[in-house]
Amino acid sequence: MNRVITIRQSVMEADEEVARRIRDRMGRDGRLYINIIGSPGSGKTTLLESTIRMAPEFRFAVIEGDIATARDAERIAALGVPSVQINTDGGCHLEAHLVSRALESLPLDTVDILFVENVGNLVCPAEFDIGEDMKVAVSSVPEGADKPLKYPLLFSQAKAVLLTKTDLLPYVPFEMELYQGDLERLNPGVPLLMMEAPSGKGMDAWIALLRMWLKEKRG
Amino acid sequence: MNRVITIRQSVMEADEEVARRIRDRMGRDGRLYINIIGSPGSGKTTLLESTIRMAPEFRFAVIEGDIATARDAERIAALGVPSVQINTDGGCHLEAHLVSRALESLPLDTVDILFVENVGNLVCPAEFDIGEDMKVAVSSVPEGADKPLKYPLLFSQAKAVLLTKTDLLPYVPFEMELYQGDLERLNPGVPLLMMEAPSGKGMDAWIALLRMWLKEKRG
Repeated sequence: MNRVITIRQSVMEADEEVARRIRDRMGRDGRLYINIIGSPGSGKTTLLESTIRMAPEFRFAVIEGDIATARDAERIAALGVPSVQINTDGGCHLEAHLVSRALESLPLDTVDILFVENVGNLVCPAEFDIGEDMKVAVSSVPEGADKPLKYPLLFSQAKAVLLTKTDLLPYVPFEMELYQGDLERLNPGVPLLMMEAPSGKGMDAWIALLRMWLKEKRG
Repeated sequence: MNRVITIRQSVMEADEEVARRIRDRMGRDGRLYINIIGSPGSGKTTLLESTIRMAPEFRFAVIEGDIATARDAERIAALGVPSVQINTDGGCHLEAHLVSRALESLPLDTVDILFVENVGNLVCPAEFDIGEDMKVAVSSVPEGADKPLKYPLLFSQAKAVLLTKTDLLPYVPFEMELYQGDLERLNPGVPLLMMEAPSGKGMDAWIALLRMWLKEKRG
């Protein structure tokens, strides 16, 4: 067993080196790079679509990670934003070398904010550094309020948590106090943004966060 | 890289041997063993709670898989059903050796149907044989209709697909024809059951399936 761990570790170290190189490059150029992580169907692509529509002040690029299909990259491309689809062919998360290859097809010079939408999964994507500035967790009301405690790695690392589909609160059981309390214990002070997709409620706060983070990045 | 794959393969083969032993044992005893797989918050534990309440004709036992917390096993135990919680401590799926150890704490002699609720994840759990008779996919309406095509391995293997939270259909976009068409192409003839949690609609068809499968198992 030890041997397995050692070898896997060296593979992971090589990937960490790739992540470091991506981070250096994005840092030099003052580009903000956000790794979006959430369950299947939590609203990650819809969030990116709304962000693109409602924040014309930024130039975006998007890398989409999925097991199969190019649907999400097509949804983004339909908005006129450069996008690349990575199919992991069974892999449950993105890794830095996959992102590195996808970056070659993007016109990074004309980009302010790069989003990577990771594979829909609350577990493995939280464990891998893909060179991002920060991870953002997307968590939807119908998934239930016990998610922070059940997936503590993601929720403790996230620089912001977006609680989506709050328009469904009247129709599903969701203990908001439990959710907020668990999140605050795991990640004190982390911004929790309530997002109501159909009305666009919550988007202003999210766009203000992006503005602040980009300013910090550019010093 | 070849060496990594070889070693990992032998670890996987050892686990397949454990899965085989579990399957033999459950087969000899005429017990039905179902591996429940779905996204975080898709309604897996709620389904098991309703099944236990509404099908007193069967004697159940439940193994719950989660990264962290014992909440789900406690929910099951509160209904008077033997349950064991496996915490994978970061692992994104259950493996046969974990199930094998959990089985030691269950009074299998008095069990007709064993449910294993896998870690909330549509990817990795579909890749691992844990000795079950069948996998059942739980997929909820708010996750959206593109899930079968995005997670083809699970949806093509499942012996039944339960579409949960159909009471939310009026409040979320969900292309039912797309969902049904993709599922039928991936897995022709697979039973698709519509489940409406609050009203219990759909539970009769699910319990009838369990009855049929158990009868087949017992010859």
